[in-house]
Amino acid sequence: MITAQIPKGFRDFLPEKMAVRQKIISQMIAVFESFGFDPLDTPCLEYAETLEGKYGEEGEKLIYRFEDRGGRMVALRYDLTIPLSRVIAMHPTITKPFKRYQIAPVWRADKPQKGRFREFYQCDIDIVGCDSAYADAELIIITFEVLHTLGFQSFNMRINNRKVLNAFAKKSGIADEAIALFLRALDKLDKIGPDGVMQEMRTNSIVPGKEQEKKILQMLHAETTLDDIAEYVRGVLEGDEGISEMHSILSSLAAHGVPAENYQFDLSLARGLDYYTGPIFETVVREPSIGSITGGGRYDNLIGLYTKQPVAATGTSFGLERLVTVLEETGKENRQYTKTQVLITVFDSTLMNNNLIIAKNLRQAGIHTEVYFSQHKLKKQLTYASNRSIPIVLILGPDELQEKKITLRNMQKGLQETIPHDDLIKAVKKHLA
Amino acid sequence: MITAQIPKGFRDFLPEKMAVRQKIISQMIAVFESFGFDPLDTPCLEYAETLEGKYGEEGEKLIYRFEDRGGRMVALRYDLTIPLSRVIAMHPTITKPFKRYQIAPVWRADKPQKGRFREFYQCDIDIVGCDSAYADAELIIITFEVLHTLGFQSFNMRINNRKVLNAFAKKSGIADEAIALFLRALDKLDKIGPDGVMQEMRTNSIVPGKEQEKKILQMLHAETTLDDIAEYVRGVLEGDEGISEMHSILSSLAAHGVPAENYQFDLSLARGLDYYTGPIFETVVREPSIGSITGGGRYDNLIGLYTKQPVAATGTSFGLERLVTVLEETGKENRQYTKTQVLITVFDSTLMNNNLIIAKNLRQAGIHTEVYFSQHKLKKQLTYASNRSIPIVLILGPDELQEKKITLRNMQKGLQETIPHDDLIKAVKKHLA
Repeated sequence: MITAQIPKGFRDFLPEKMAVRQKIISQMIAVFESFGFDPLDTPCLEYAETLEGKYGEEGEKLIYRFEDRGGRMVALRYDLTIPLSRVIAMHPTITKPFKRYQIAPVWRADKPQKGRFREFYQCDIDIVGCDSAYADAELIIITFEVLHTLGFQSFNMRINNRKVLNAFAKKSGIADEAIALFLRALDKLDKIGPDGVMQEMRTNSIVPGKEQEKKILQMLHAETTLDDIAEYVRGVLEGDEGISEMHSILSSLAAHGVPAENYQFDLSLARGLDYYTGPIFETVVREPSIGSITGGGRYDNLIGLYTKQPVAATGTSFGLERLVTVLEETGKENRQYTKTQVLITVFDSTLMNNNLIIAKNLRQAGIHTEVYFSQHKLKKQLTYASNRSIPIVLILGPDELQEKKITLRNMQKGLQETIPHDDLIKAVKKHLA
Repeated sequence: MITAQIPKGFRDFLPEKMAVRQKIISQMIAVFESFGFDPLDTPCLEYAETLEGKYGEEGEKLIYRFEDRGGRMVALRYDLTIPLSRVIAMHPTITKPFKRYQIAPVWRADKPQKGRFREFYQCDIDIVGCDSAYADAELIIITFEVLHTLGFQSFNMRINNRKVLNAFAKKSGIADEAIALFLRALDKLDKIGPDGVMQEMRTNSIVPGKEQEKKILQMLHAETTLDDIAEYVRGVLEGDEGISEMHSILSSLAAHGVPAENYQFDLSLARGLDYYTGPIFETVVREPSIGSITGGGRYDNLIGLYTKQPVAATGTSFGLERLVTVLEETGKENRQYTKTQVLITVFDSTLMNNNLIIAKNLRQAGIHTEVYFSQHKLKKQLTYASNRSIPIVLILGPDELQEKKITLRNMQKGLQETIPHDDLIKAVKKHLA
């Protein structure tokens, strides 16, 4: 006998779990499609070289890599952005802007721990071939619409811009080569606080003098407004561009009616990945406090790694696993996970054909109907319906058959009534309503 | 620059392709759920030992295997039946009968060739924990309903029973140990004909004498009826059981109203896999002639490989790739793959917020609406709409805005009209109808 085991960090989703996941996914897709996004699917395996060098030192270690039969290194998909970039590079004539969504598993050889898995779903939307900040704004609007649709209220969409951060660094006398270190330090603000960030900047000696240090610390401590930083970076071309993009984004959100408490300019948002080039954004759920559930930004240079012609692109990603966790914990208990509405019990096999015909008629009326096949005692059949929370059970014996009647049991109310055969569909619909 | 390449035998599905696939999948799911099947999802990776020894000599070679970080051999999912068996073994108390569907990719390191891929989708339904032949019959009924829903008419569901075949072999003097060879030879009937099959049986010397050879040849040549074989195997317990199961199945199909031309008892159907124990079935599409598109059967001993308690099970699998190919070739050209219904063009950025509000109102009325963001010439924006077959384009300039009007262009009819702002939703719905 082989021991039945699932690999560590991997999960099965039984029907109860699937019901929640599918509900969230279908609500997301409805929003995505209402904004004109179409689906894309890419393989689970990519050539390793397509993925390598994109995810930073830490990410690199987590790629699942192996040699295929032909001796080439392949890798399991690590995210959905790199495969999209490869697709765009391979299809240079695709109609642009290309707006796609993809909801699919990705794999990371991480240490399994609570809430962290080696296989998990990402839900990504991206707009490729449009350099307007309104495209970035749309991603944030969609983020709001999705979270709102899923019932979230207390969340904060933090928005910043790499151009503004670059100009901030330049104005503070930080050398171009040191900007990556500056961003990496800034990215830790939540964890180590302003003084910790400054300490790290000092350790790496990236800030030239006391005066600049003071300015940076001030910006880190205060809730720096867009006007504050606009004034500070004025005259640095990149900074002015970034500020103008921020204005387009903020004005879009206001026009769309996104409540002011759900978004804010946040100069301290840096985002980890190196490839961002413009607006960046991230959503933090305050209640329950589960941290970041979406993140994204503009990456105008990434696709250029695979093709001579650079292509502007921006995208954002929803962490399905965290969304599911929250909705499972805060949502109503989803006892009725099955979509089955009616179970037809079996008296004995001579009545089976009769049951099949009733089932067919119910299904044709749009009612999800299951037939019990094994000749178990009625009690066992009722337990089955109860375990699966099937709301209605139909019971047919030889007497009922002769009288052209049927017994309908409403499992939730514990009621039972006898119904003429011809009124069955109407009665079932009444009980389901 | 890295060359953008997709691994051989793997595919991207761009939105045009996704539209067809999603439509087929959602039609299938609707049928599955109407019969009370719930979704299950399992990981793409399993421990290699879970998969090994299940798929025969040829299959074994096609498993994608590699060592994970912890030094354990893992493998990409090869089918959906073995993962289901592992899940059942790991959850012994799951409510039974457990009726699940799973639609997911599987991987086989096969030689890529026309119509054969290394990553492809399977759509499986299985009933676990029910030993009644009515469960097998339901799978065949669902197969009929799915193909019927998808628009297939000329197809043949072949049905046989391993118990009957075993009894046939026994009555023909074939030793128990040689039955696997007998089935393997029989499985080639379509390819090598009755005489080829007999030749193979002779080579393996599994038939004891001339008389038995004659009987087998007769059965292979003729359209052996259920009554013929029932008489031949009478008295062999297993054979009588199998015949009785066949009667239950055929009577279920008739009761459900499956047309007689769409199914038949076929003694020559053997199915490749070793693990079948009872009814087996397969669907062949006659027009267009694409061969087998579904296949399955009862496997009452498979789950027992992973758990002490054996669990009865039966299942069938739809080959999504072949279904898609046929429906793409025979179906209407699916030009309008996008679900976007309206594109709002942009005159200049001062009108963007106005466009966003119109878009929001349209979406709230259930209309899928896209906003164009880049300030391209109108002609380019119209080309975009035309490339994506978006049926309606809205055009707003400063004059229209002042007059609270909007220009609606019906792209299919090439018509244009000017509409008061307040009548927009009504007008759009009229044009979409």
